[in-house]
Amino acid sequence: MIAQYPPMGWNSWDCYGAAVTEETVRANADYMAKYLKDYGWEYIVVDIQWAQPTAATHEYIPFAEMDMDEFGRLIPAVNRFPSAANGQGFKPLADYVHGLGLKFGIHIMRGLPRMAAHRRLPIYGSEYTCAQAANPNSVCAWNPDMYGLKCDLPAALDYYRSIFDLYASWGVDYVKCDDIAREYPHCKREIELISEACRNCGRDIVLSLSPGPAPVEQAEHLKKYANLWRITDDFWDEWRLLKGMFERAEKWCVHAGPGHWPDADMLPVGALRQCYEQDGQGADSGERSHHGWTNFTEAEQRTMLTLWCIMRSPLMIGGDLPKNDDFTLKLLTNGPLLAMEKEAWCAHPVCRTEEECVWVAPRKDGKGCYAAVFNLSDEERIVSVPHSAVEYAWARATELWSGQPSDALSAKLPPHDAAVWYLE
Amino acid sequence: MIAQYPPMGWNSWDCYGAAVTEETVRANADYMAKYLKDYGWEYIVVDIQWAQPTAATHEYIPFAEMDMDEFGRLIPAVNRFPSAANGQGFKPLADYVHGLGLKFGIHIMRGLPRMAAHRRLPIYGSEYTCAQAANPNSVCAWNPDMYGLKCDLPAALDYYRSIFDLYASWGVDYVKCDDIAREYPHCKREIELISEACRNCGRDIVLSLSPGPAPVEQAEHLKKYANLWRITDDFWDEWRLLKGMFERAEKWCVHAGPGHWPDADMLPVGALRQCYEQDGQGADSGERSHHGWTNFTEAEQRTMLTLWCIMRSPLMIGGDLPKNDDFTLKLLTNGPLLAMEKEAWCAHPVCRTEEECVWVAPRKDGKGCYAAVFNLSDEERIVSVPHSAVEYAWARATELWSGQPSDALSAKLPPHDAAVWYLE
Amino acid sequence: MIAQYPPMGWNSWDCYGAAVTEETVRANADYMAKYLKDYGWEYIVVDIQWAQPTAATHEYIPFAEMDMDEFGRLIPAVNRFPSAANGQGFKPLADYVHGLGLKFGIHIMRGLPRMAAHRRLPIYGSEYTCAQAANPNSVCAWNPDMYGLKCDLPAALDYYRSIFDLYASWGVDYVKCDDIAREYPHCKREIELISEACRNCGRDIVLSLSPGPAPVEQAEHLKKYANLWRITDDFWDEWRLLKGMFERAEKWCVHAGPGHWPDADMLPVGALRQCYEQDGQGADSGERSHHGWTNFTEAEQRTMLTLWCIMRSPLMIGGDLPKNDDFTLKLLTNGPLLAMEKEAWCAHPVCRTEEECVWVAPRKDGKGCYAAVFNLSDEERIVSVPHSAVEYAWARATELWSGQPSDALSAKLPPHDAAVWYLE
Amino acid sequence: MIAQYPPMGWNSWDCYGAAVTEETVRANADYMAKYLKDYGWEYIVVDIQWAQPTAATHEYIPFAEMDMDEFGRLIPAVNRFPSAANGQGFKPLADYVHGLGLKFGIHIMRGLPRMAAHRRLPIYGSEYTCAQAANPNSVCAWNPDMYGLKCDLPAALDYYRSIFDLYASWGVDYVKCDDIAREYPHCKREIELISEACRNCGRDIVLSLSPGPAPVEQAEHLKKYANLWRITDDFWDEWRLLKGMFERAEKWCVHAGPGHWPDADMLPVGALRQCYEQDGQGADSGERSHHGWTNFTEAEQRTMLTLWCIMRSPLMIGGDLPKNDDFTLKLLTNGPLLAMEKEAWCAHPVCRTEEECVWVAPRKDGKGCYAAVFNLSDEERIVSVPHSAVEYAWARATELWSGQPSDALSAKLPPHDAAVWYLE
Repeated sequence: MIAQYPPMGWNSWDCYGAAVTEETVRANADYMAKYLKDYGWEYIVVDIQWAQPTAATHEYIPFAEMDMDEFGRLIPAVNRFPSAANGQGFKPLADYVHGLGLKFGIHIMRGLPRMAAHRRLPIYGSEYTCAQAANPNSVCAWNPDMYGLKCDLPAALDYYRSIFDLYASWGVDYVKCDDIAREYPHCKREIELISEACRNCGRDIVLSLSPGPAPVEQAEHLKKYANLWRITDDFWDEWRLLKGMFERAEKWCVHAGPGHWPDADMLPVGALRQCYEQDGQGADSGERSHHGWTNFTEAEQRTMLTLWCIMRSPLMIGGDLPKNDDFTLKLLTNGPLLAMEKEAWCAHPVCRTEEECVWVAPRKDGKGCYAAVFNLSDEERIVSVPHSAVEYAWARATELWSGQPSDALSAKLPPHDAAVWYLE
Repeated sequence: MIAQYPPMGWNSWDCYGAAVTEETVRANADYMAKYLKDYGWEYIVVDIQWAQPTAATHEYIPFAEMDMDEFGRLIPAVNRFPSAANGQGFKPLADYVHGLGLKFGIHIMRGLPRMAAHRRLPIYGSEYTCAQAANPNSVCAWNPDMYGLKCDLPAALDYYRSIFDLYASWGVDYVKCDDIAREYPHCKREIELISEACRNCGRDIVLSLSPGPAPVEQAEHLKKYANLWRITDDFWDEWRLLKGMFERAEKWCVHAGPGHWPDADMLPVGALRQCYEQDGQGADSGERSHHGWTNFTEAEQRTMLTLWCIMRSPLMIGGDLPKNDDFTLKLLTNGPLLAMEKEAWCAHPVCRTEEECVWVAPRKDGKGCYAAVFNLSDEERIVSVPHSAVEYAWARATELWSGQPSDALSAKLPPHDAAVWYLE
Repeated sequence: MIAQYPPMGWNSWDCYGAAVTEETVRANADYMAKYLKDYGWEYIVVDIQWAQPTAATHEYIPFAEMDMDEFGRLIPAVNRFPSAANGQGFKPLADYVHGLGLKFGIHIMRGLPRMAAHRRLPIYGSEYTCAQAANPNSVCAWNPDMYGLKCDLPAALDYYRSIFDLYASWGVDYVKCDDIAREYPHCKREIELISEACRNCGRDIVLSLSPGPAPVEQAEHLKKYANLWRITDDFWDEWRLLKGMFERAEKWCVHAGPGHWPDADMLPVGALRQCYEQDGQGADSGERSHHGWTNFTEAEQRTMLTLWCIMRSPLMIGGDLPKNDDFTLKLLTNGPLLAMEKEAWCAHPVCRTEEECVWVAPRKDGKGCYAAVFNLSDEERIVSVPHSAVEYAWARATELWSGQPSDALSAKLPPHDAAVWYLE
Repeated sequence: MIAQYPPMGWNSWDCYGAAVTEETVRANADYMAKYLKDYGWEYIVVDIQWAQPTAATHEYIPFAEMDMDEFGRLIPAVNRFPSAANGQGFKPLADYVHGLGLKFGIHIMRGLPRMAAHRRLPIYGSEYTCAQAANPNSVCAWNPDMYGLKCDLPAALDYYRSIFDLYASWGVDYVKCDDIAREYPHCKREIELISEACRNCGRDIVLSLSPGPAPVEQAEHLKKYANLWRITDDFWDEWRLLKGMFERAEKWCVHAGPGHWPDADMLPVGALRQCYEQDGQGADSGERSHHGWTNFTEAEQRTMLTLWCIMRSPLMIGGDLPKNDDFTLKLLTNGPLLAMEKEAWCAHPVCRTEEECVWVAPRKDGKGCYAAVFNLSDEERIVSVPHSAVEYAWARATELWSGQPSDALSAKLPPHDAAVWYLE
């Protein structure tokens, strides 16, 4: 089964934006193999704009030329990914990652490059052209590169087949498809085509849909056609966004299970925004500064990891791994905590207010359960698991951040902090 | 704890409407004590209009005189409840029910009788009058008897105290308060006052709120102030309503737990609508006929019981118990099935389409779990539990309606039928 | 034709609220006959609560006893209307008003008195009772006195006939029916019944519907069944409300015509709120103080009169007439301005912004037209009629507030002031 | 003043779609000069796709090459407009039209050609490029040719100036700008830029905005920045659309006046859809057939002309003029009817139901008024002007379709027919 457990890995967006390079990818893969692999981390994912030679920040350049083959398929910009030279695409880089015992993923946008349509390029292995497959009125609201496809025409599936077959030949293990998960209903059919192309490309490829929020009314459709799908818009290191995730997690938790995972987005921890000079200048958004380290407090990072793990969200690290400090590395290598991703099931909140939240999840093996408490307020606060919430008759409780045994399911928490117990 | 498990019992509405009598209540109590008590059934609940001497069907008579004491508190109509003579209220009947080892409940409408306001009667134990407590603009949309209260005034709490103290003196164990659960936000404060009066009356009284649908956004408020609350409008023996319950159950399931239970409403099984002549004439609604037996097929009744049990809804039998046939009695005494009400937790659907639905629930003791499949279509259908849905590693499966062991979690089901497995 | 022109008169609400007395009515009628009649003013209207003996302010007293006859028809409280003694109702007062050459009107609430239903009083001239006609679930949101009627039953028309026949016998010329104009769709049928009773009572009675805003989608229904209907909620002496009327007037202007007039509500000029001690204490609403004189500036009063006249709204003076000062009397006796109510037609705004508004209306006789400019801003401002707005080729312009000739259709206006020209 | 009266003319869309040619334009201009000019018709407007060499029907061809100059300005396709050879653009054709005593208009889409952006062409007379002015995310929902502009950048105004200056040099008198009138709020600024470029191009050019429905809340903005704007989506020869226009006309009528005219769209009369083989085959829409003659009955055409004239909508004939039959020519040359466009003002409906509608309009010169009745039902029906509707005291009535005097303002009308009286 593809994605039996929530995928865990690293993604280049939070630290390198549209400007990720092969060198950076290799460095992060090396780090993961050395420090994280033993804890379950395995995917190395190259995010957006790898075909655009001049991308330098988190922004997109309208009408920029993108590298593509004669069939309108984007290929890595060789100036950024040297091993892609001579038409080898991502194969050499994927081979390198595989050689470390890891898996390799890439980002794509739905649709095909606008210029492939204007140039009327042929679709590989098809009688149709890109001009026939492209829908000139289907454009992404935030990225200028592509046209969506006319999904009622056979040309559309032909195009998607042509790219997934290429990705399979490169050795891709994970595709994050963008501009699609929140685009219901008009992208419903496009999701089905992409899924069909992915499932039939001859290689096990995890299919991840972005950005969110995907509509919860489409849960069954998403579970059938994708392995993970974003439940939020882009998540960054702001408390407001983290707090908001509790409501989203509540709506989605019943839909998590082997092969289909609601995705709370990357973990913005450690060294972020590394594609900028670290002088605090040059904003790409008024909402966050550009200094290069996560704005999350340690408490907030515990809260994030606790929620992501108990709800069994996929875990994709956003920070530049080689720059991790001790705290960050320790955060990401808390084995008993990460075990929830594999051992918990039927996780759900038992209460949620503006000030606090409590989650509970049994273990699949029947040997106990987990209970987490979150202080969502801005003041120190004692948060307790309600008696009604843990119907499992436990004998021993261990708090997983401290590693200490506990008599009561109650904790005095700093603002935005969390505690989580393993109950046996 | 009040309502540690979902309450199970009998309610007079489905079979006797507004016309229930003491004789009927005693007969149903006798039957329950003899045939059902051993399976967990215990509440005997007298539904609406017990203070109205002339009620004869499911309808309400505008401007009818209701029996009340000199403090504007409704008291049982003696012509219908003879033991209430001499101001004894429901005490003698409650005593009788207690004598059988059962518990006794009554229905009330929020507010106070309109005539108690127009007559400016004093509130018992208060310096205020009913005219001061009543809000002349707060009337029920479907019942003509009461005025809601001005909940910002102390007179309102005084009135609610006066009635709950009376109910405690009668020995009432369960109060179903009507015209309130779906009346958010304007009844939010009224719920709090009723809860306060109930909690402080000196007796453990289960507080149940009707009718639904209560708004799921108010889940925390409901959990705090009530023991159960309706998640639907009145539920009757129509497949359309039963099918619709699957969506409601999905929204509410995370909110079930000791002390607070989302309520899917009475079970319309067996002999219903017994307050009419059984000639099929005299409709009180164009939507259902008046014949006296449930319109649900046996398959539909299995589906209903399975869903109510796995979601841990309260169970209130709607039929006239002494008229139960073998099927109905057997349906209500399936011990392993009913065990889910006490032993399951963290129940949730894992998929739901127009055609089928699957639920899963672990056991609290860690010894296995439950999985149920439902055929929601109108044709025979094989319904299977997805592999991703049961992460518990089970060794043995028993189907609880047949009592037979099973190799696979898959069943060929007639239209509207269900199967449910206990997995060890 | 009833209401060939927009009715003009006086109404007791703004100055005496629910506490109007016969003495006050007579004094206002005397004043109108002496000072206003020659300018077209003719209706004297007794507003709400004339059947309630203890009403003293603008508030309503829940569960107060109201005077009614043995058929559940409200009759004037004799302590407040002495001439109503001996069952004469409003006949003596109406006779007095008629003797002055004026017309007499009263206010009613839709429905019948609640206690008439609870007492099951018979309906005059009908086989039915008030209990049968009353709908116990139809109550006014802001007044506690009445139940709306079950308009599908013949008893409802019987009741409305019984009251309109009584009003005709009293000599009533104008009925303002309340709790109805904004209550579409549920009161649509009730409007039709009231209209039918009014049209068939044997006397010409103007039928006015309140409160607003009536829905503009129902314009044809209103035009068919009523002579005037409110286009706003209660209008008081606040600039915010006056400014808001420009948008409402724009929506409704095409619906004004002989027999059917959109009504912008009473004119709060002169001595208001006379039912309070004039110490500025005792608010019935946080939004306005209780001092006894209009809060409108003179400029605002000109703006109000100009808009009401050019849009041809009914004009009902809200102030206590005998207390008028010179300004107020002059305001109300500007003949050339008031002539617009009779001579203009096809009036409409030609532009409207946050800062200014311009209206134009031809004359019916083809001899010229009117153009008005309004300064809606809080600063002095030159407001001009756009060239495109007056397609009539005029030779002479007279400004109607100053009475002066004018070369250009442009005026430097103080904040909230207006100018209006008659163009020949 | 530009557009002192509602423009009247001919537009190529209804008969030739995207495939209009110079030959056709000249033939229609010749006809107009000969048969229609004396009645006020004067504009000859070339509609969409004149820069696209291969357009053949009403459809648009994605990714088709369009003729443009080296500054990204579209120019007429020489194969369709031979006189445009040698860079002369529409100048020779405009000269020809002017020589006939008529005026010349063209259609444009907001924005600039997509390929002008992808090719990064310079903007004429600007320091910026088309790539800088174009917004890659602003595309038309129904046409694939253009990108909208980044209206906050100076490059946007530069581009619009560059095209309007070109149009002025060609001698264009009328520009119909498409993909904009219903695109509020996001196109509000784009309308302002286009208006500014139009007003400053050195030639009087009528600015018309399409398609509708423009939002009535934006009436003041539209009146300020445009001369006409569509109040509906495309109007064709279907009764459903014509009936629907009565509601739109009611909302918009107060906004008609010199310089600013709400536009009910072209008149689909006579020979339509001439770009198809006339075999009834080949639908471009499931809703209408392709036969080449209007589907409107004669009655419906009278209704359409009556409504358009009394509301003072612009009049643009949609049929191929040389193919007019007698009825059509007579319809378009009813002088007394067309006089309403110039002589009426303050037009408005006085009633409108599903079955009938009545409009009234005074004359600007004070000498009478107009009243029109419409039978909107599917059966013969007597429709009368309500007495309350015509407050002008008329002495003589002439029905303008029959030319006959009339005693009463009432007519027995066939289904969908109209009558209109001139009242003196």
